[in-house]
Amino acid sequence: MMNYKEHTIKVFAPATVANVACGFDVLGFALQAPGDTITITKTDTQVIEIIDIIGANSLSKNPTNNVVGVAVQTLLNELGSKQGLAIRIEKGVKPGSGVGSSAASSAAAVVAANVLLDAGFSNLDLVRFAMEGERLASGTAHADNVAPSIMGGFTLVRSYNPLDVIRLNTPNDLFCAVIHPQIEVKTADSRGVLQEHISLKNAVIQWGNVGGLVAGLFMNDYALIGRSLQDVVAEPLRSKLIPGFDVVKNAAMVAGALGCSISGSGPSIFALCKGKEIAEKCAKAISEVYENIGIPFKVYVSGINQEGAKVI
Amino acid sequence: MMNYKEHTIKVFAPATVANVACGFDVLGFALQAPGDTITITKTDTQVIEIIDIIGANSLSKNPTNNVVGVAVQTLLNELGSKQGLAIRIEKGVKPGSGVGSSAASSAAAVVAANVLLDAGFSNLDLVRFAMEGERLASGTAHADNVAPSIMGGFTLVRSYNPLDVIRLNTPNDLFCAVIHPQIEVKTADSRGVLQEHISLKNAVIQWGNVGGLVAGLFMNDYALIGRSLQDVVAEPLRSKLIPGFDVVKNAAMVAGALGCSISGSGPSIFALCKGKEIAEKCAKAISEVYENIGIPFKVYVSGINQEGAKVI
Repeated sequence: MMNYKEHTIKVFAPATVANVACGFDVLGFALQAPGDTITITKTDTQVIEIIDIIGANSLSKNPTNNVVGVAVQTLLNELGSKQGLAIRIEKGVKPGSGVGSSAASSAAAVVAANVLLDAGFSNLDLVRFAMEGERLASGTAHADNVAPSIMGGFTLVRSYNPLDVIRLNTPNDLFCAVIHPQIEVKTADSRGVLQEHISLKNAVIQWGNVGGLVAGLFMNDYALIGRSLQDVVAEPLRSKLIPGFDVVKNAAMVAGALGCSISGSGPSIFALCKGKEIAEKCAKAISEVYENIGIPFKVYVSGINQEGAKVI
Repeated sequence: MMNYKEHTIKVFAPATVANVACGFDVLGFALQAPGDTITITKTDTQVIEIIDIIGANSLSKNPTNNVVGVAVQTLLNELGSKQGLAIRIEKGVKPGSGVGSSAASSAAAVVAANVLLDAGFSNLDLVRFAMEGERLASGTAHADNVAPSIMGGFTLVRSYNPLDVIRLNTPNDLFCAVIHPQIEVKTADSRGVLQEHISLKNAVIQWGNVGGLVAGLFMNDYALIGRSLQDVVAEPLRSKLIPGFDVVKNAAMVAGALGCSISGSGPSIFALCKGKEIAEKCAKAISEVYENIGIPFKVYVSGINQEGAKVI
């Protein structure tokens, strides 16, 4: 008889906010909630099966066409293993929201497989495997959502070639309000509005802010973090795809947010705050904006998740 | 009778390396040596006089046409003071070298005037005044040399508008080899080879490295500092103006440098190293390159100056 405990594992991985205003394609942080939960059980089949998906109707159960299947298969290939696996996906993060829905699933899946198979891969390896899920989801193997979902806190993708991911210090009193207007912004459109070249002047502004944000995180300097949360590259173009963005941002800043910008490629908007109380005040203020406009929304208040994906 | 001690002051301010590979226009650090020394004495004249310049023949004694005069006058104007001052300049940093010659003089001068007049200006104010010297010297009010010369260590100019300068943590075991080939590279030429627009792809690489360098400094992670010392924006274009650059860089890396790039707008080249021994090895290796090419040079090995400009 098999010992059930040795043959199944359940992992939660959190939603994430990528870009974080100034850090297009390189910065991200993890939320405490929501998140996705992946349960993997060993089987004798030598194939990956996705046996259940809860909380999202649009996702494929074909493992070659699901980020979880692709990410886990990449891990198995590198391990040289043909272990059969049955995977159950519980989506807490709605696809297309801009808070790393595919990344949370991929992250939870590779962390689960790594523990279940006692594979011993490093976090950097796991990020690399989960990035293959991102490649399936968006056409590009981004790491700015999977890295914080796996490692927790704020992460910096210093380089993609070779892959180099740094876990940054993350002050304990940072909280985040995230609002997800229930509209569709296609990643392709969100990428499409960006320009292939930017002025050197704006690039200098942007990397000054990246340096300031990273310094602020290490110095636990909330004011510096706030001053650095500026995006002169993507936000001016992408915010046009999100109705009410400017009003939401203004409401968040008036309510005391350190900064407010687009989460990933949108449509979710995040406001970073010092302390839970201000984050809740921000959440209320930005909710009222979408109530007035008449767009349905979901809103979250969350601390920063310091531990990332974890076995539960 | 005047008390001499109350009416004169002498300040040393160090040479600096700006840009630091990835941080074009925003990052810089201070050397322990060389540096400039400014002596200021109160007079009854109500004007600024530059009474002596030692170590540089090309500089004007006309205070409106000398960075020291301009920087100090800016401070006096903001203070609303018509105090007469006699200024003596001792240049340890050769003009046009690329290690912040004008910045060292401006920095020493405003720090001296601030103490002598008990003016109480903040470091940020002093940076702002010294930037007016930079405006005279190069046409643009850069802060990436004056900030580290005043504040010491590594500094980040997070923003120019409004001016925001951050003193970064600076690991104690960082040493620097700097070689100054005795050739002229005009700042205008060095600016002229840059392009007004850069690809978003290169911009992302650059701000990943800025984030990595700042994180490495705070984490005392020398390897991360080294991996982050990459410049895909200015170095590929400016290095063509410096004969032997590629050979020097290769020699420095082979000798164990963490990274090697152009100091400021050149022609000096710096190699950051972990420990004095490796920095001395680098200095020897890069000196041999210019000996072989037959270009005269000066070479320095220095720790990072943690305190910046100081009364002596």
